[in-house]
Formats: sequence, structure tokens, C-alpha cells
Amino acid sequence: MQKVVVTGGLGFIGSHVVDALLAAGRQVTVIDSMVAAVTDGREYEVFPGCQVHRVSIADYLAQGGSFKDQDLVVHAASHVGPAGILKYQGSLGADIVAVTQQVIEECVTHDVALISFSSAEVYGRSGMLAESDDIIVPTHYNARLEYAIAKTLTEAATINSRHRGLRGFVIRPFNVVGPRQSRAGGFVMPTFVQQAIAGRPLTVFAGGGQERAFLSATDLARFITEHAGAAFESDRPIFNIGNPLNTITVWNLAERIIERLGSTSSIEHADARLIHGPLYEEAESIQKLPVLDAAKAVGWAPTITLDELIDETALYYRVRDDAREAAAVPLDAGARV
Amino acid sequence: MQKVVVTGGLGFIGSHVVDALLAAGRQVTVIDSMVAAVTDGREYEVFPGCQVHRVSIADYLAQGGSFKDQDLVVHAASHVGPAGILKYQGSLGADIVAVTQQVIEECVTHDVALISFSSAEVYGRSGMLAESDDIIVPTHYNARLEYAIAKTLTEAATINSRHRGLRGFVIRPFNVVGPRQSRAGGFVMPTFVQQAIAGRPLTVFAGGGQERAFLSATDLARFITEHAGAAFESDRPIFNIGNPLNTITVWNLAERIIERLGSTSSIEHADARLIHGPLYEEAESIQKLPVLDAAKAVGWAPTITLDELIDETALYYRVRDDAREAAAVPLDAGARV
Ligand SMILES: NC(=O)c1ccc[n+]([C@@H]2O[C@H](COP(=O)([O-])OP(=O)(O)OC[C@H]3O[C@@H](n4cnc5c(N)ncnc54)[C@H](O)[C@@H]3O)[C@@H](O)[C@H]2O)c1
Ligand SMILES: NC(=O)c1ccc[n+]([C@@H]2O[C@H](COP(=O)([O-])OP(=O)(O)OC[C@H]3O[C@@H](n4cnc5c(N)ncnc54)[C@H](O)[C@@H]3O)[C@@H](O)[C@H]2O)c1
Repeated sequence: MQKVVVTGGLGFIGSHVVDALLAAGRQVTVIDSMVAAVTDGREYEVFPGCQVHRVSIADYLAQGGSFKDQDLVVHAASHVGPAGILKYQGSLGADIVAVTQQVIEECVTHDVALISFSSAEVYGRSGMLAESDDIIVPTHYNARLEYAIAKTLTEAATINSRHRGLRGFVIRPFNVVGPRQSRAGGFVMPTFVQQAIAGRPLTVFAGGGQERAFLSATDLARFITEHAGAAFESDRPIFNIGNPLNTITVWNLAERIIERLGSTSSIEHADARLIHGPLYEEAESIQKLPVLDAAKAVGWAPTITLDELIDETALYYRVRDDAREAAAVPLDAGARV
Repeated sequence: MQKVVVTGGLGFIGSHVVDALLAAGRQVTVIDSMVAAVTDGREYEVFPGCQVHRVSIADYLAQGGSFKDQDLVVHAASHVGPAGILKYQGSLGADIVAVTQQVIEECVTHDVALISFSSAEVYGRSGMLAESDDIIVPTHYNARLEYAIAKTLTEAATINSRHRGLRGFVIRPFNVVGPRQSRAGGFVMPTFVQQAIAGRPLTVFAGGGQERAFLSATDLARFITEHAGAAFESDRPIFNIGNPLNTITVWNLAERIIERLGSTSSIEHADARLIHGPLYEEAESIQKLPVLDAAKAVGWAPTITLDELIDETALYYRVRDDAREAAAVPLDAGARV
């Protein structure tokens, strides 16, 4: 797995994957349309083994780009985020599916292995969530569910293409956080940390009783650099990647961030729809916690603690603005996961 | 609702919708790629108010076709059928979604009302199935589930486009049968009836204990010609269309057909995978029965009985070959729903 394509490689998760791959000495081709990039990627271009294409996947392929002679594609490009997706409601699912299908077809054609990013959102319900569990789709459709159903369909297309020779599996990430994650998508950790640094109130949606397990993007990237081989060999179709040790309610996360960063901020309840607009919907799950059967079976375990995650996010935003701040909602706006 | 486009209008359900619309004096534009047509459509071309385009929706639009000045689109084009879908496994979901999204975008652009065909397959489980119920997606993906998830996503895209002004709702048909339905897709009624007429064994899959409720395509078409206005006014997003009065197990249906048609056929258990290949999967549902809350609320009720359905299917196939027989599995092959 020496030559790797990372789609969405200038996004939050994608850039951590690129970091880890370059550190491991791999040759990396980044394809990113820049619609939601968190870095311009100039830091990658100094690596002789790294090429950066600032173009959509569709245009990359239409302009003669190919996955030929690549060993692996890590497909992380997608519309993302509870707030980030809203402006595409009604067509975002078809977009996600079309882009992913192009990637699948190209991997089938050139016999390139594929790791495709799905989401823990697919489960559609609360609790301890295991790969073998049924998925639930409530029929009160909204943008969040359109996203979740589209991700489910990309899973089915990936797994269902094994009969045509595709070597592929799916990752379902659970609440990934870390440096470079923007509050623009509507994510809770960068929002709370930036609010705490600025001394503004931390804005909690939907009561704050929601329980989440926060995973480091570095731990996730390590799954790909160190465990992908075993994952392909295991023949398992789906890998939950998350960190159940970092489980906390959103309200307690706000308290923990304030304490840890010595912030003078207060905590306030906020109405998400006043901020993100009337299309905004909460997740179906009050509790979204990963069971790690498949990842454990191939030897992976997360290591980075919640306090370390708060620290590294704060370290990043103490010296930098939110790269996507222009597109972002105001700092008072609040966010959740 | 004078000017109506019917996509898939030369397919089984689409052609019954076209029949009913023409009988009601509407102007009808048929678009059908002929990949699975059950009629060549020449009988429609004698109507001055009917145009037939034998082309895919994508090509129709690419070649300058438009829904401009139309009042309603009935979108029935799709990959269909438990056996019919198998050869597209791994890409059929993306196809269904892409085609439907093109239809949605064209309807949004020209402010044309849309009735989009989903399927009772979306429920993903057994029992009495109501529009407000959650959908279940088991994660052992196969072609059937890829179809069901794609249909679910087309539902979400249709409903989620209401905020962009789309007037649209979704129909979930339950086991529609009638003249012109081909056994090629893997459907049980035309298979059993043709086997009974030929005196060949009726081939039952998966034990025959599966319970289904059979709906007449004529009853379904009448929902569109006579109740669509009320359906749009009701603002309901999803309509189960089925006939719970025609509930029967597959084994009992075989017995009933033999008795009704005075056939000398026997009934045999058969292994679907020996016939349709290793990708074939049974439905998730042992029992697939519609609750008709939404359709009843707009005044629709099915009227055609199971015996009438057997009679009209037999009448059709006593004097005709199965139009899609060339593409069809052998008459001994069996089928289910
Ligand atoms: N962040 C999380 O906690 C989380 C949780 C579950 C799943 N995921 C999934 O992980 C993947 C990465 O998420 P992220 O948080 O890094 O999102 P992100 O928005 O930070 O990154 C996505 C990147 O893809 C790019 N992109 C979008 N469409 C593209 C296209 N058509 N062609 C090329 N590039 C395109 C964007 O410019 C962006 O840089 C996504 O598939 C997402 O659904 C993320
Ligand atoms: N028959 C049933 O019992 C049943 C049950 C549930 C749902 N449905 C749904 O009802 C609709 C109609 O089903 P049917 O049984 O009449 O199927 P069918 O296969 O008989 O008809 C579909 C028609 O669409 C055409 N078509 C396919 N792709 C096309 C494209 N891209 N552009 C133009 N035409 C295209 C085919 O040539 C065919 O004539 C489908 O959406 C199906 O999923 C049917």
C-alpha cells in the first residue's frame, strides 16, 4: 500500500490521514475541491512524494486523472456536518452517492483497494452501536437523514461491489475531533474551545444531555496507516472507529473545557434553529457510543484522552483563526454533534 | 393536471398509468429507455394527445427535452424486480438515485408536480407496515437492500425538496400485479400463472409461507388519475398503495391459481439461487402487508379481488407470450415477491 490517493485530503479528517501517510513514507495524491478545505495544502507540496490536486473528483477524472497504478484510495470527500449540509438539502444525498460511485467504478476498473468513509450517523438511533446492528431510518425526512441514508447507500455500493472484484471496506467514524476541525460544519469541540478561549458563553443545544464519545483524528489516521492491511485481510466489511473511553455529555464537555482551559466563560442553552436556520435538526441519537468489534479484531485501539483532545484543539486555536471562519457561523452560534 | 409525463411509461405499472390517463382525456408524454419495457408503445401513438419517447431520461434531457409547461410527472422508471436488479449489483442504487434526482431537479426548475415511485421494500421487515413506521436496514448488504436504500434516498430527496418549492409525494406500492407484468423481473403472479397455463410445476421459493397482499395495477393507476389532487392537497409525503384484502401466502396463491385455472400443474419447492444465481436474496419480510392510512384519508380504496387478478393475468397470457420472455428465466425457474 505504497501509493495512496486521499480524496478530501485537505479537509479535517483527510488532512490527518495525509499527515500520517507522509510520516509513514507513502506516496500520496490528494484530491480536494476546496469547498470545505481546512488547509490550502501548501505544506504537503514540499514533500516530493506528494501531489495536490485542488479539483473535484468528477473534474479530476473528467480531465484525464486516474487511479491507475495506485494501491489504495482513502475516500473522505463528502458533504459533511450537521450545519454544513443544510444548504444542499434535497440534493446532497444524490451528490454524495454520485461522487462515491465514481470512486468505486474507478477502483473496480483499475483494481485499486478502497477505504470509504461512512458515518456513525447511519445507525439512526441511540445507544451502544455495533457493526452488525440494524440501521434505523425514521421517516420524518430532513437533511441529516438524507445524509445518513446516502452514506448507507455508499456502504451498500462498496460492499456490493466485492462480487465485481472490489477490495473495499467502510469506516464509520464516531465524533472525530482534533486540530483543524472547523466550527463551520456545526461541530461541538472546535466551537466550545474557541468560545472558551474568547471568554464567550459556551452555547449548548438540545439540553446538553446528549452523550458522545470523542475520537482523536490521529488515532483514526493510525488505523489507516497501521491496520488497513489487517483490515483488508479480515474481510470484514465495516469498521466502527471511535473511542468509548472518551464518553461524556455535551453539557459536561462544556464544563470540562472551561475548567481545563481556565476560561471565564459561562454555559448557556441555545436554540440551534435560531442559529443554523429552520432546516436544522438534532441527531436521532441521545447516546451515540461505538462498539469496536471489528477494529479490535485487527489490533487497533484508540489512545488519546479527552483532556489531550481539549488541549490540542486549544493549542491550535490559541494561535490561529478558524480556517473556515469566513464561512462559519458567529462565535456565539453554538454547535453540537 | 392536464399534461402529464410518465417516465417508465412502457413498463408494467407505467403502462397502466398511461392507459388510465389517456382514458381520462389527459395529454401524456411517455419517456422509456426500453431496457425493461413490456410494450413497444405503438398503441399509444394513435392517441393525438400522446407522445412516446423511447429514450432514457438522461438522454431525453440531454437532447433538449424538458418538463417545461407540464403539470405533473409520474416517475415510474427504475431498475426493478428481485431478479431484474441482480446484474446491476454494486451500481444499481447510484443509478436509481441519479435518474430520480434529475427528475426532481427538472421538476423544481419548471415548477412541475411530482409523484415518485418508491417501494414497500423500503420497510425492510415483516408485518403490517404503516407510512409513519421506521425503516429498517439490516447491514448484510445485497442487491435487494441496495435497491431498498436507494428508494429510501429518493423518498428523502423528494420530500426534502419541498423547501425548494417542489410539490411532490411518494407512492410505496405493495406487490402490484396484472396484465403485462413479466416473469422476467422475478415476480410471482406472472410466473405461477404462466406455469399453470403450460401445465408445468409451480415453483415456490423459500417455503411459500411468505404472506403478501396483491394489488391490481388498475387500482393503483386509479389512485393517480382520481386521487392525486387530494393527495397533493393533503400535504402527506408518503402513500402506501396496496390491497390488504388480497392477502395470501405464496403457497396458497399457487394452490388458488391451479384451482382457479383448472390447471393440471403440481407445486414444487425450488431453490432461487440455482435459478437466479448466487446473488439472489429473499426479501427481509415474511409478511408484507400495507396499512393504508394516507390513501384512505384521500378517499382511495382498492376494489379488484385476487380471483379477478388471477383471471386477468391468465386471460392475458393465454393469448400472448411474455413480452420480455427472451430476457426471462425459463418457465420452470420460479419466482417470488
Ligand atoms: N468529522 C467527523 O466527526 C465525521 C464523523 C463521521 C463521518 N465523517 C466522514 O468523514 C469524512 C471526512 O469528514 P471531515 O470531517 O474531514 O469533513 P471535511 O468537510 O472537513 O472534509 C471533506 C473534504 O472533502 C472536500 N470535498 C467535498 N466534496 C468534494 C468533491 N466532490 N471532490 C473533492 N473534494 C471534495 C472538501 O473540500 C473537504 O476538504 C466524510 O466522509 C465524513 O462524512 C466525519
Ligand atoms: N411492480 C411492483 O410490484 C412494484 C412494487 C414496488 C415498487 N415498484 C416501483 O414501481 C415503479 C414501476 O415498476 P414496474 O414494476 O412497472 O417496473 P418495470 O420494469 O416494468 O418498468 C420500469 C420501466 O422503466 C423503464 N426504465 C428503466 N430505466 C429507465 C431510464 N433511466 N429512463 C427511462 N426509462 C427507464 C424500463 O424500460 C421499464 O419500461 C418502479 O419505480 C418500481 O420500483 C413496483
